[in-house]
Amino acid sequence: MKKLIVLFSISLYLFSCAQKEEKVISSAQLSSEEKIDSTNIKLMFNSALTHGKSYEWLRDLTSIGGRLSGSPEAALAVMWGERVMKEAGLDSVWLQPAIVPHWIRGEKEIAYFVSNGKKVDMAVCALGGSISTPKNGIVAEVIEVKTIKEAEALGEKARGKIIFYNRPFNNTLINTFSAYGGCVDQRAYGAKTVGKFGALAVIVRSMTNKIDNYPHTGTMRYGDIPLNEYIPAAAISTLAAENLSMNLKENPRLKVFLKQSSKNLPKENSFNVIGEIRGVENPEKIIVVGGHLDSWDLGDGAHDDGTGVVQSLEVLHIFKKNNIKPKNTIRVVFFMDEEQGGGGAKAYAAMAKTTKEIHIGGLESDAGGHTPRGFTIDANTANTALLKSWKKLLSPYGLHDIEKGGSGADISPLKSEEVTLVGYRPDSQRYFDYHHAATDTFDKVNKRELELGSASMASMIYLMDKYLYQNTPVKL
Amino acid sequence: MKKLIVLFSISLYLFSCAQKEEKVISSAQLSSEEKIDSTNIKLMFNSALTHGKSYEWLRDLTSIGGRLSGSPEAALAVMWGERVMKEAGLDSVWLQPAIVPHWIRGEKEIAYFVSNGKKVDMAVCALGGSISTPKNGIVAEVIEVKTIKEAEALGEKARGKIIFYNRPFNNTLINTFSAYGGCVDQRAYGAKTVGKFGALAVIVRSMTNKIDNYPHTGTMRYGDIPLNEYIPAAAISTLAAENLSMNLKENPRLKVFLKQSSKNLPKENSFNVIGEIRGVENPEKIIVVGGHLDSWDLGDGAHDDGTGVVQSLEVLHIFKKNNIKPKNTIRVVFFMDEEQGGGGAKAYAAMAKTTKEIHIGGLESDAGGHTPRGFTIDANTANTALLKSWKKLLSPYGLHDIEKGGSGADISPLKSEEVTLVGYRPDSQRYFDYHHAATDTFDKVNKRELELGSASMASMIYLMDKYLYQNTPVKL
Repeated sequence: MKKLIVLFSISLYLFSCAQKEEKVISSAQLSSEEKIDSTNIKLMFNSALTHGKSYEWLRDLTSIGGRLSGSPEAALAVMWGERVMKEAGLDSVWLQPAIVPHWIRGEKEIAYFVSNGKKVDMAVCALGGSISTPKNGIVAEVIEVKTIKEAEALGEKARGKIIFYNRPFNNTLINTFSAYGGCVDQRAYGAKTVGKFGALAVIVRSMTNKIDNYPHTGTMRYGDIPLNEYIPAAAISTLAAENLSMNLKENPRLKVFLKQSSKNLPKENSFNVIGEIRGVENPEKIIVVGGHLDSWDLGDGAHDDGTGVVQSLEVLHIFKKNNIKPKNTIRVVFFMDEEQGGGGAKAYAAMAKTTKEIHIGGLESDAGGHTPRGFTIDANTANTALLKSWKKLLSPYGLHDIEKGGSGADISPLKSEEVTLVGYRPDSQRYFDYHHAATDTFDKVNKRELELGSASMASMIYLMDKYLYQNTPVKL
Repeated sequence: MKKLIVLFSISLYLFSCAQKEEKVISSAQLSSEEKIDSTNIKLMFNSALTHGKSYEWLRDLTSIGGRLSGSPEAALAVMWGERVMKEAGLDSVWLQPAIVPHWIRGEKEIAYFVSNGKKVDMAVCALGGSISTPKNGIVAEVIEVKTIKEAEALGEKARGKIIFYNRPFNNTLINTFSAYGGCVDQRAYGAKTVGKFGALAVIVRSMTNKIDNYPHTGTMRYGDIPLNEYIPAAAISTLAAENLSMNLKENPRLKVFLKQSSKNLPKENSFNVIGEIRGVENPEKIIVVGGHLDSWDLGDGAHDDGTGVVQSLEVLHIFKKNNIKPKNTIRVVFFMDEEQGGGGAKAYAAMAKTTKEIHIGGLESDAGGHTPRGFTIDANTANTALLKSWKKLLSPYGLHDIEKGGSGADISPLKSEEVTLVGYRPDSQRYFDYHHAATDTFDKVNKRELELGSASMASMIYLMDKYLYQNTPVKL
């Protein structure tokens, strides 16, 4: 044993073991078609990891900064998207008009309270779509609630108050999107719920697992309430939320000052950016792969959704680089305005209904650029089973989670019984650290994780192109 | 369809879908014992994610800084380890003496070449165990090689030269440990190979996937070569390596200056830190869980292996916090000196042979603190199959990769036919960005990823304690 230790040079031990562990699928387990698939998938991973362009594209795109729908930065992003698609040598590239909202944040928001004669600043930001406060801000007492139901029950008690929604993420949920889904109603409908009672504003705890001092913005909705019930809505950092809550316990009459100057301008004309490689057998049949080009303004929209954009283009780049000729047309779409209403998704879906093209599948990447975990499938029973059968080809790349589930906001309007929609699912653990905050920046994206995601998506598109093709319907 | 879009508030679409996706195992698939296990595993995950201490322990430990074996910082880490184990309320805590090397880096290393009259600095650092250069440094021509074999073939050509090992990581390998395993011979044996030919020094490309300007240190070995064949060895950043290689192509007579003042001091006395919860049924049977307390000096040893240390203690903390009484004794070991020879591992293994204790299992965490992926198993056929059968209990937590493989440098000396050794395997994609470099610092560790790892390990120890127990041998 002693000799073994010496021989192994102990600190190298783990690695000499690990070296033997690189997983390959035993050929014996595969049919001859699957062997071809396995080889092609390995080829695509090698390509992404050695000649991938996604990381440099992302550096470029994020250098524009945040890309709010309707903003000059979003317009620059459209130009950037058209340029890189043309440089990638796609068969055709075009812009598709879309109508988008144009909300602006205005000046840096201010919020504070005074405790024991000391001013305590709070990190806040206006929520997307929110109106401004009056020019001189709002000063009011605060009522803390944990749920929309609790807010709804306030009734007249809410009048003249700031309502503070402070339900935290449930950190015991393994998939952080589940925790987000369990909280985001506060952000979306918090203002709408108490505007009718005469509340002056709402402050909403940021949508993140992390306790830090960055507020996370995101869309809020007034829905169909009358204009006079519109009240301003701001996000507050989780650290400031915890602190405010603690101070409210000591002093329930505490007054908070809030000032923001955000506003909604008239709608703007913008574009989806679209490119494609024509299918060699059935060019009229389309498989879409995409992410969204717009982003929130606080960071530079790296994980949400710069990564999805560059990964989607990388799929086509990998096909071209390796001379893989798709049977169907593979189309990349950089969707505009996922964040504030889906103007781009609506425009695309409307077009899809009126052309002779037949959409047979779609894949969306809008869950960050972290290490690959799998895909969720929104398809009929047969195609769901078909996609699940690809697990043995994909699991050597960490893609184990291939289950029924949603696809994505931008492609879901294409849903029908015949179309197979898929969402790319990277690891979710770090996503809400950055999501919609000033911290969602290029340096948070790891090159290998991004490239592995591109290759995962390319593999899925390759398999969809090869196997969905056989039994797709004609357009009625 | 249009209505659907409006209802769904498109940017919330993904998340309302995701919310439904939190995976639970259908009870129908589980036996009654497995249902109990499933409940207990969920309990342990909840505990780690809501009351875990690992992140704050790691903040504390890394605040000591790098913890080279034999250094004052390593001694502080021992004191820290003893204190936190006692605070965790373990049944007993003790220090186990171990003899360790004491290598010091000395002054900041200097390396440069002159190209077109311009001095080009290169980011280098001495490799662990390396001797110094002469006081005034070395100036010599450089021969670039890619393999030990190529270096071996140089023979007399190496005399008076600096040998530059420049074989990069194979980035197409999905598990980055495989790429490391394919390159680390250059670092370990590069100097030994050419010292005998009269080479003056070696410079070794850093062991990382990333192209950046941080040199990565790590151990090198002179083995049994005579003292007069010892030559200094330094790591060079990948960026500097690429640049040096390019310049050598233009000017093969290029001379490099290298100066370092590292040296080996007499061995030191140090300690493993050990604590345990006594088993309620078979206290003499031991399951070890551990990581290593020492680290390299450039960063603060966060991922290598601060995370393994705090996760291992968290396993016992989770047991105590949830009043889970193990059948066997669960022992946590903070091993000293994994990086430079395994003095702690040797001391522990020697003790294990001479006491009446029977080691039935071990689990090591020394592959970083990233998001959980699985475990590798070093055990007999029956127990390997047993551990693999736990996949259905562990896969809801992202633990899909449960395969035969190595355990870890510190517990592998315990190997026998009867003992079941396991290595914790988090995602490897980012690990070598930081490994042994100045960038391996606390801020690179994500709290949730760390906590999920602690819970993964606690779940494995829980299952080992429950199921390995039944058929373990008596000591001969």
